[in-house]
Amino acid sequence: MVGVATGCVASGIDYGIVRLTELRFDLMRVLIGGGANWAVLLLLQVALCGSFAAVAAVLVCFVSPLAAGSGIPEVKCRLNGLDLPFVVKSRTLLAKACGVLFSVSAGLPCGKEGPMIHSGSILGSLFARVVFARFPESSHLRDLDERDLIAAGGAAGVAAAFGAPVGGVLFALEEGASFWSPQVLLQALLCSSLSALTLNFFLGGFESLGFGTLGALGVLTFGSYFQSSGSSYRLWELPLFVALGVGGGLLGATFNALNIPLTLWRMRWVGPSGMKRFLESIAVAALISVIFFAPPAIQFECMVTDVKTDPHQSLSLTCDPSREHSTELQASLGLFMTPSEDAIKVLFHDPVAFHPGLLLLFGLIYFALACWTYGLGVPSGLFVPSLLIGSVFGRLLGEAVRSLGGASHGWSPPGMYALVGAAASLGGMARITVSLAVILVEATGNTQYSLPVLFAVMTSKAVGDRFNHGIYDIHIHLKKMPLLEDPTRVSLCDEVVSGIMTQDVQSLQPAESHARLSSILQTSHNAFPLVNSKGSLLGLISRNALVQLSSSSNPEPINLTPCSNLGAYSIRESATVRRAYDLFRSMGLRHLPVVTVDNTLCGILTRKDFLEHCASCTEC
Amino acid sequence: MVGVATGCVASGIDYGIVRLTELRFDLMRVLIGGGANWAVLLLLQVALCGSFAAVAAVLVCFVSPLAAGSGIPEVKCRLNGLDLPFVVKSRTLLAKACGVLFSVSAGLPCGKEGPMIHSGSILGSLFARVVFARFPESSHLRDLDERDLIAAGGAAGVAAAFGAPVGGVLFALEEGASFWSPQVLLQALLCSSLSALTLNFFLGGFESLGFGTLGALGVLTFGSYFQSSGSSYRLWELPLFVALGVGGGLLGATFNALNIPLTLWRMRWVGPSGMKRFLESIAVAALISVIFFAPPAIQFECMVTDVKTDPHQSLSLTCDPSREHSTELQASLGLFMTPSEDAIKVLFHDPVAFHPGLLLLFGLIYFALACWTYGLGVPSGLFVPSLLIGSVFGRLLGEAVRSLGGASHGWSPPGMYALVGAAASLGGMARITVSLAVILVEATGNTQYSLPVLFAVMTSKAVGDRFNHGIYDIHIHLKKMPLLEDPTRVSLCDEVVSGIMTQDVQSLQPAESHARLSSILQTSHNAFPLVNSKGSLLGLISRNALVQLSSSSNPEPINLTPCSNLGAYSIRESATVRRAYDLFRSMGLRHLPVVTVDNTLCGILTRKDFLEHCASCTEC
Repeated sequence: MVGVATGCVASGIDYGIVRLTELRFDLMRVLIGGGANWAVLLLLQVALCGSFAAVAAVLVCFVSPLAAGSGIPEVKCRLNGLDLPFVVKSRTLLAKACGVLFSVSAGLPCGKEGPMIHSGSILGSLFARVVFARFPESSHLRDLDERDLIAAGGAAGVAAAFGAPVGGVLFALEEGASFWSPQVLLQALLCSSLSALTLNFFLGGFESLGFGTLGALGVLTFGSYFQSSGSSYRLWELPLFVALGVGGGLLGATFNALNIPLTLWRMRWVGPSGMKRFLESIAVAALISVIFFAPPAIQFECMVTDVKTDPHQSLSLTCDPSREHSTELQASLGLFMTPSEDAIKVLFHDPVAFHPGLLLLFGLIYFALACWTYGLGVPSGLFVPSLLIGSVFGRLLGEAVRSLGGASHGWSPPGMYALVGAAASLGGMARITVSLAVILVEATGNTQYSLPVLFAVMTSKAVGDRFNHGIYDIHIHLKKMPLLEDPTRVSLCDEVVSGIMTQDVQSLQPAESHARLSSILQTSHNAFPLVNSKGSLLGLISRNALVQLSSSSNPEPINLTPCSNLGAYSIRESATVRRAYDLFRSMGLRHLPVVTVDNTLCGILTRKDFLEHCASCTEC
Repeated sequence: MVGVATGCVASGIDYGIVRLTELRFDLMRVLIGGGANWAVLLLLQVALCGSFAAVAAVLVCFVSPLAAGSGIPEVKCRLNGLDLPFVVKSRTLLAKACGVLFSVSAGLPCGKEGPMIHSGSILGSLFARVVFARFPESSHLRDLDERDLIAAGGAAGVAAAFGAPVGGVLFALEEGASFWSPQVLLQALLCSSLSALTLNFFLGGFESLGFGTLGALGVLTFGSYFQSSGSSYRLWELPLFVALGVGGGLLGATFNALNIPLTLWRMRWVGPSGMKRFLESIAVAALISVIFFAPPAIQFECMVTDVKTDPHQSLSLTCDPSREHSTELQASLGLFMTPSEDAIKVLFHDPVAFHPGLLLLFGLIYFALACWTYGLGVPSGLFVPSLLIGSVFGRLLGEAVRSLGGASHGWSPPGMYALVGAAASLGGMARITVSLAVILVEATGNTQYSLPVLFAVMTSKAVGDRFNHGIYDIHIHLKKMPLLEDPTRVSLCDEVVSGIMTQDVQSLQPAESHARLSSILQTSHNAFPLVNSKGSLLGLISRNALVQLSSSSNPEPINLTPCSNLGAYSIRESATVRRAYDLFRSMGLRHLPVVTVDNTLCGILTRKDFLEHCASCTEC
């Protein structure tokens, strides 16, 4: 269900992007045919891009601020156990899905993939709510199952975004879930397969293969390597691939480092929604459209006029016929005006030689603009920009190898270097490994290069991790969301639980008066330990349960025991922080009562306590 | 390190199997050239197969009984937290690696994959021990890390067996690990990538492409689909693929059901090692070689004479020249004498039409013999037989579709049905899903059919689970190894912990005399709770720690506190069994003290308690 729905949404987004982008280029072609000069064309470009971006920005700034960006940080936090209800609302879904359609069509350096993943997660959550509304169960189970479905929806999103069902499951596993069982795995797989199938079905239809033809090239987002001859590489190319990994790691770390002050600046001066953010988004989009328009126009008065291309060929440019243009220059200039996804295909597959200087220029400009765009008030994924940046630099290396006569020694064609470079770059920014490798293999249909891709991805992650965190973790951190990371990645001092717990606990006894319940509900805590008259811990009762109980008008003391969790986990004050952290994270807890040796309640642990502890450990 | 070593071992096994099988066929060809009649040839076949099987059986029956079978049940138990030291000894490695070389070369219906996975795990464990001997740490950490390395080694084994690094990681995840972190994932991935690279390096060398050419077809265990034209399928074929899934599920369930009484009979009458088992193995091997020899010889006096084949072509048969033989019949008869892995390639890729009756006969005979073989006293994997059985039945369906004119409607070629059938069959026996699909995609280089494969695998698992457990779980159960399964797969009644715990606990006080320690070490328990004078639980001390402490000759009472785990998890007697089970499994525990509301020790939970509980729940 979730899978099919995600597939449908993704197909709609895909279809819309293709149509809107075509519209943009069609208008331009009409003007060129009418003999318009470059100033008119520039005006048209700015107007179209600006107005598309405006639609996307309206949806974010005035409908749902959480629809901004890729949404992966939010999904990650939700899966980690944080209660961010707005992340998974239907209004966010609407804003996200429509918004990304327009932000990508506006020619911004952003991708549709992250928003698709977020959309899938929202669909999973909505589905979970519908199901649970009909089959009410205990709140703990409900929360777990909703998270499973959110993860499955995210997997379906990846499957639809890249045509990579297995990659989707792995992505959900790698980024999302802190606990995982074979059943969840299967559920996510079913979901992502159905999503990929739905996408496949619609794409086959759109691309005039006729509905019902599946497994055709439509599903290979980044073009198939089937037809390319070179499917083997030499052992001595491996160091080059690892070098690409190092480069990708450095690139990604730089990107992340540059994005931090920018995001802080935005948080300080622009804010999460409203008119300021709206205006910033439009201004940046217009400026970006000018920048991308400039190089082809200045150098050769060329316009890209054809957007539908064979993935194995470059784009057509309509240039001033009075000048001579080498294919090298044409191909390189074409990149500036090509939609990002198509540019990746060109770099992966086109056998033409690119002009190294222009390629480098394009890479640098795109890098800067992508960094600027991420965090803007429009839905914008990071996958495609990152892959494109990486494939530019990979292709540069590939061109160098080719010009040194690599092909005659059985070395890989330049497109393969682009593939490895793309993997390295995304690995360096997002710090995902296994799922990324699988996604790229599935999206290109190329299993022969899975090893180079794996090595590049692992190297870039290792290199990047030496400098900073992944871009998603950085945004989570900047937004001060209390995410509990993998224990191997955080620094926990050799301290015991009693040193970090909150000692001032609001506890309840099994029978309490209305007045006491009302007063305790004034606090902001979400759960309260239940103790007996001697102070021994009995269990834990949630705020929701208390709210329901206190709403009855019975004046007698209320018996809290039936609504409490009497088997709640607890930990001894003498246990190490790591032990508590492991328990917290593995079990997806939000509160952990701390007890003495005779089970007397002496404190409570929440996510905040751990995060403060981690922060102080890093400092000391 | 582990990865490279596993890759080397796997390459050695691969190389050995190819050479030994060639030797077998070379001798036969010489005899045919010398004009020998079929009786002489049969004698040679039986002698060669019998003696190869004898070598394998000697290694199992007299060197290391744990080298029998695929080894996956044992690895699975070890990863689940069971202490089976002999599973991961170097003697087992030797017996396994050499044994599988001979058992596969003997022409038995068994594969090299399971043993390779086991070998990889052993290498991982050995490596862990070497490292830990140099960097001693706390015993809890050590155990966890050793398990991570065993999982990584297993992943490397899959990577080497199928050339599927990502599939290997997923296999380790799906079958092995009950707890998992991104770091373990990365470690396993690095390990399996290096293993695949090593294999790639050696295979490239063996297959005269020259060392250093990587990513060539050598790595595609089951042959590449690159050259085949049909890479799309129609929507209306999906029901057929799902039907193959149902068939595979039924097939797998039947296989497992038949294997249970056979295994029980073997446990009762043959025993795990010794002369009886040795003789059974040789006798069965000889009989199997006769059965496989018979059909070609009887029907057409044909002999398979060529073992090295293009994966896209059938095997050559040397037949009585006085008779007429259709290619249909030749191809079908050739399967009987083909090594199993090559037979899979033929069924996947050969465009020739097979004779349906002979194909069915082959499938049924092979099914029976494979079932008979699994559990024999030789190292024998189940992957290849299972895939072969499935591809026979898938191919049958594919031939039917082709004969009904499917090709003219754009339907898939018969080889694709064989691929889907193979996936369904293995899914039905072993009940693995995600990793299996990825392995097949990686091993054939075909991403276009990942969706049909996924659907078939999920269907076959669902169908199979309605009848019995996976073959590995069955063997674990038959061997009475206390494995804690995924909580969604076990039946836990609505009972509280106090109902299932062991009440008679041997507990210790912080200071104990030598005499008390000596007496308590007479029991078979592996851990003892530490309580204070009031009976409150303080922590847990392991048997190993006690043994070390009691070896000192100091007559004073010994202070146990420094060697105890004072932060050990405990659970309240009023908690539900499911809650305790979750904690036990997520944290990889072996002992869980049970306490009352004032933290007084009142019992202890071990794996056995849970298993007894589960068994009683299923009954009631």
